[in-house]
Amino acid sequence: MKKTVIKDLFRNQDTYTDQKVILSGWVRTVRDSKTFGFIELNDGTFFKSVQIVFDDQLENFKEVAKLSLSASIRVEGQFVLTPQMKQPFEIKAEKIIIEGNSTPDYPLQKKKHSFEYLRTIAHLRPRTNTFLAVFRVRSLASFAIHQFFQDKGFVNVHTPIITGSDTEGAGEMFRVTSLDLDNLPKNDEGKVDVSKDFFNKETNLTVSGQLSAETFALAFRNVYTFGPTFRAENSNTARHAAEFWMIEPEVAFAELPDIMDLAEEMVKYVIGFVLENAPEEMAFFNSFIDKGLLERLTLVNEADFGRLTYTEAIEILKKSGESFEYPVEWGIDLQTEHERYLCEKVYNRPVFVTDYPKDIKAFYMRTNEDNKTVAATDLLVPGIGELIGGSQREEREEVLLSRIEEIGMNMEDYWWYLELRKYGETKHSGYGLGFERLIMYLTGMSNIRDVIPFPRTTGNAEY
Amino acid sequence: MKKTVIKDLFRNQDTYTDQKVILSGWVRTVRDSKTFGFIELNDGTFFKSVQIVFDDQLENFKEVAKLSLSASIRVEGQFVLTPQMKQPFEIKAEKIIIEGNSTPDYPLQKKKHSFEYLRTIAHLRPRTNTFLAVFRVRSLASFAIHQFFQDKGFVNVHTPIITGSDTEGAGEMFRVTSLDLDNLPKNDEGKVDVSKDFFNKETNLTVSGQLSAETFALAFRNVYTFGPTFRAENSNTARHAAEFWMIEPEVAFAELPDIMDLAEEMVKYVIGFVLENAPEEMAFFNSFIDKGLLERLTLVNEADFGRLTYTEAIEILKKSGESFEYPVEWGIDLQTEHERYLCEKVYNRPVFVTDYPKDIKAFYMRTNEDNKTVAATDLLVPGIGELIGGSQREEREEVLLSRIEEIGMNMEDYWWYLELRKYGETKHSGYGLGFERLIMYLTGMSNIRDVIPFPRTTGNAEY
Repeated sequence: MKKTVIKDLFRNQDTYTDQKVILSGWVRTVRDSKTFGFIELNDGTFFKSVQIVFDDQLENFKEVAKLSLSASIRVEGQFVLTPQMKQPFEIKAEKIIIEGNSTPDYPLQKKKHSFEYLRTIAHLRPRTNTFLAVFRVRSLASFAIHQFFQDKGFVNVHTPIITGSDTEGAGEMFRVTSLDLDNLPKNDEGKVDVSKDFFNKETNLTVSGQLSAETFALAFRNVYTFGPTFRAENSNTARHAAEFWMIEPEVAFAELPDIMDLAEEMVKYVIGFVLENAPEEMAFFNSFIDKGLLERLTLVNEADFGRLTYTEAIEILKKSGESFEYPVEWGIDLQTEHERYLCEKVYNRPVFVTDYPKDIKAFYMRTNEDNKTVAATDLLVPGIGELIGGSQREEREEVLLSRIEEIGMNMEDYWWYLELRKYGETKHSGYGLGFERLIMYLTGMSNIRDVIPFPRTTGNAEY
Repeated sequence: MKKTVIKDLFRNQDTYTDQKVILSGWVRTVRDSKTFGFIELNDGTFFKSVQIVFDDQLENFKEVAKLSLSASIRVEGQFVLTPQMKQPFEIKAEKIIIEGNSTPDYPLQKKKHSFEYLRTIAHLRPRTNTFLAVFRVRSLASFAIHQFFQDKGFVNVHTPIITGSDTEGAGEMFRVTSLDLDNLPKNDEGKVDVSKDFFNKETNLTVSGQLSAETFALAFRNVYTFGPTFRAENSNTARHAAEFWMIEPEVAFAELPDIMDLAEEMVKYVIGFVLENAPEEMAFFNSFIDKGLLERLTLVNEADFGRLTYTEAIEILKKSGESFEYPVEWGIDLQTEHERYLCEKVYNRPVFVTDYPKDIKAFYMRTNEDNKTVAATDLLVPGIGELIGGSQREEREEVLLSRIEEIGMNMEDYWWYLELRKYGETKHSGYGLGFERLIMYLTGMSNIRDVIPFPRTTGNAEY
């Protein structure tokens, strides 16, 4: 008798036909009549459950018939093909051992629960179909990204989470400290004496690994990060979380179009990987979460992404005749309504907007010849808006210096970043991909709280 | 003429023979005489450099001959096999474009630098042979781990970094806050009013994703985490960092021996993967960092890991005749000296010690029949000591409850963890692998600061 898992049964039905198997899993439903019954058993290895048939030949027939939902059991029985039934096969139980029963107050009884409610039981929601599908797709997409970059020889760099420099806007960073907040040491000026803190200075949670990644790109040529990043931003939307994962590739000897090609290839690779490795989950999303999902993803995989400049985008938006909440003028930062109009209404596929005004973009982006715009790009995708933001980095030491001065940043914090421009500067480019937004795009889930195992948002750090 | 990278030249010498190629990279050395010269060029894609031969036919011969170390250049030239020379081939340059020169104060001049010094230029040290090797091996090992678990159908779970619960010892956790430390809001008792903080409560950086991972294991059966964890521990040793990465697999329907098998298979898989995919780097470590490395790793891959109980280990240590700094008695926590004696002197290979006294282990570990020990294991490896710590988890609700009470932990913080025992409890087990220690083990590097891109240790959060 062979210990196996449900995924293997579904994938290799031929080899199991009429064989004895041993399964362990959790009870999804039980139906029974006087002398026999059915259990829908899921073991987490596969999206679908297996039907277990049992009858009063079992010595513990009565206990089995009364099992609570989510009880864990071990089943020994025979694999039988059932070509005439809805399910392709079932297991005729010869023995059922109850490992751990459940109680009738189990919150996931057989009915529809709102996502809002399921968020309050985040420790149990992965047992539902939707979240079994979401988090398997999340895992597969994560692996697809690693595989994509590793196959190309990219080096995965673990950039620091705790950072002493405040890359882009300290106001939105979380402070990290080992000081006792109720007994803070003070200096002569009555301020917190940060020299007494763990790192002898003020430290924060990273908002991006990019600057660190650049140091490695100038040694390894092709690198990427994949790790958590943080924003202490008080925005209570369906698209923002305080803690989220980012992928940040950085490529030496690359200009902006090179990393746009890379980003497009990556997005298509991940879509293809997920469609191939989670067909059951993706079909589920297409049926129950987002009707057009499969068609849209398949289309994306076949079409070239659109490419246009910010200036062209502004022209299109102005001529569109749409009444936007935020008026359109050259120089504005594009809002989600503008982004979605461009990719949903104009292009009907993902689109790269390039060459944004330098005043609305970060200091490290390379100034274009026109001295008004920078070599930056955002990838906008239907349903989401901005998925990726990238740029060619300013490699010219004197231009970077004057830009840092112009903005009034603290030059001393960036001594090591500036040194990269002094010792063998090269053109280099990179982008950041918000991993949760990618998962929303792949699954059709519309709230970021529903694609993160235990989401952290304003006022919420449960579990 | 084909744009290519140095790795491809080395791996596919046949297809490049006598072809024209275009390379970009950084100058490692320049030697020149009056009419010709040699450049050692590295482009980061491969451990080894390529020899570029140039002569005064180049229009910029003089500039090229005077290039500073680390200058970035683009070379167009012919690939020529040189079977009679030390290097298997070289590039006869026809054109060399200087992308970015360097300055003579470049800190990595051609001489030996101490690891201590290189830590002070962490943004440049990946350009040295040692760190080019360390961080490529780190990247490959990271991918090997993902591949190992994904191939087995494990689901990668991103457990939270910011946590509201203090899993194991709040004293060693970093506090996370968005409050202004110089203007803390106070409550009626004069304490910090944590309800005003971003998450409306006290939050810290995670020390382990295990408890969260357990919730997912009871849905997906096989899961693993791979992410950063933190300790605000003031220990200034070569083996401790404040920020490090951990891998934590968690398996439902698994007992202690199952996850010991899994851990052994994983360690061997990673060793095999790195030996196969980074042969040049591993040969370098074996020659310059740790003479016995390759022999030791090869041996490990062939032998079964040792397995003995804590009680047996204590007996062996007592009878050893060694004079340990920490005296050996049943009940003590094994120190590194004991661990290393067991795996280096007694077994000469990795060894699992199991069934530790329950008083020195965590509350969630499953109490054995003897009521004195728990189903826990540490994997000890030569040169490192503890590499992996794992256990079977206490799935019995009443035993877990009484254990939490016994220790005096706050029951309310664990309501969701306890509910896992109520709703379909199953036997389950898991372990934690310190990723940096694995890298030290794989490379022979003896200080954790030298296997982390930008290490965070007491008093140090530079870059």
